[in-house]
Amino acid sequence: MRMAELSRESGVAIATIKYYQREGLLPPGELTSPNQADYGPAHVRRLKLVRALTEVAGLSVAAVRDVLAAIDEPRTSLHDVLGSAQPGLPSASAQDVTEADREWAARRIDEVVAARGWRPPPRSVLVETLAGVLCAYRAVGHEWALDSLSTYAESADRVAAADIEALAQLRSAENIVEGAVVGTVLGDSLLAALRRMAHAEASRKRFDRT
Amino acid sequence: MRMAELSRESGVAIATIKYYQREGLLPPGELTSPNQADYGPAHVRRLKLVRALTEVAGLSVAAVRDVLAAIDEPRTSLHDVLGSAQPGLPSASAQDVTEADREWAARRIDEVVAARGWRPPPRSVLVETLAGVLCAYRAVGHEWALDSLSTYAESADRVAAADIEALAQLRSAENIVEGAVVGTVLGDSLLAALRRMAHAEASRKRFDRT
Repeated sequence: MRMAELSRESGVAIATIKYYQREGLLPPGELTSPNQADYGPAHVRRLKLVRALTEVAGLSVAAVRDVLAAIDEPRTSLHDVLGSAQPGLPSASAQDVTEADREWAARRIDEVVAARGWRPPPRSVLVETLAGVLCAYRAVGHEWALDSLSTYAESADRVAAADIEALAQLRSAENIVEGAVVGTVLGDSLLAALRRMAHAEASRKRFDRT
Repeated sequence: MRMAELSRESGVAIATIKYYQREGLLPPGELTSPNQADYGPAHVRRLKLVRALTEVAGLSVAAVRDVLAAIDEPRTSLHDVLGSAQPGLPSASAQDVTEADREWAARRIDEVVAARGWRPPPRSVLVETLAGVLCAYRAVGHEWALDSLSTYAESADRVAAADIEALAQLRSAENIVEGAVVGTVLGDSLLAALRRMAHAEASRKRFDRT
């Protein structure tokens, strides 16, 4: 199909498609003449994915590029995606914190990890990111909110187990890697939306007795 | 304190502080001479909050402005924050989907809401956002991942209940509203980081028997 049809099929404006191409988010079409390219269903699918990642998951163009790289990298295994590559991870890091903050975060993480039976590599991106998030609560003076940390970790465990079970039902290898990446990133947005709905209900029950 | 000390105390570069001021994220200091302003502890605190929201939660400047408005709006009650104002909510909306997609999402939401006993207003921002997220899974061809939807909703309920309990322990009204906003936004990042750690562990158990 031509660019105009690609735009109709994907619901993405032509100018935006050209921008995505310049940013490396969409492979070029097959040239049929010096200024005409042909696009296929894979382009439509990719555009819909880019759209979901930017508009729904709220990722930046750079973060989308990382997510697509994790999907397209031929050596990526499912276990790489879920165990080390961490698409769409919050960009927290504990770089500008004091030594005391760092030690405090490490202790909190040790507690959580031990309680859940997790075995993250000690200096992994995951551990550093979690430390960054914990330090952020402390930096803004809302450390009290971490009273719920063990509930968060338990819930993360339940959701992750359900994610992995659903993934394990998939058949094609390409689908599984893409599914792991997409499910991880969109799952953040899903949890965020559901949590706010649950907040509204819990707040009504707790604070508003009408 | 002067700008230079504000920068040291908050760990935010002077140029960045000036940018935040232009963008309305930081109130002006008290003018002590035509080109000199005086800043207090409230400015330090606000800068640390802006930093956590941009760097850790990954919010855009516009989203940070919304979050701060929710905190500063004098008429905001805790129930407003948790029940209707939804700072840092994913920007999903189901605007460009077909009628069939919209009906499908509405049915899935009805099921979840009924199972959890939630009572969201039918056309609220929360319902529209959740519909947008569900449609995004469908648009990218990973509808199967929603097999876990009820587990996500149950986990959201547990986390929200813990959030509200922790909030209810706070004393000062200002603290409670700020805490609700900050806890909601940083909680997304916390869940995201913990869920990836849980993924790594669940993947190891499920796919890697070594």
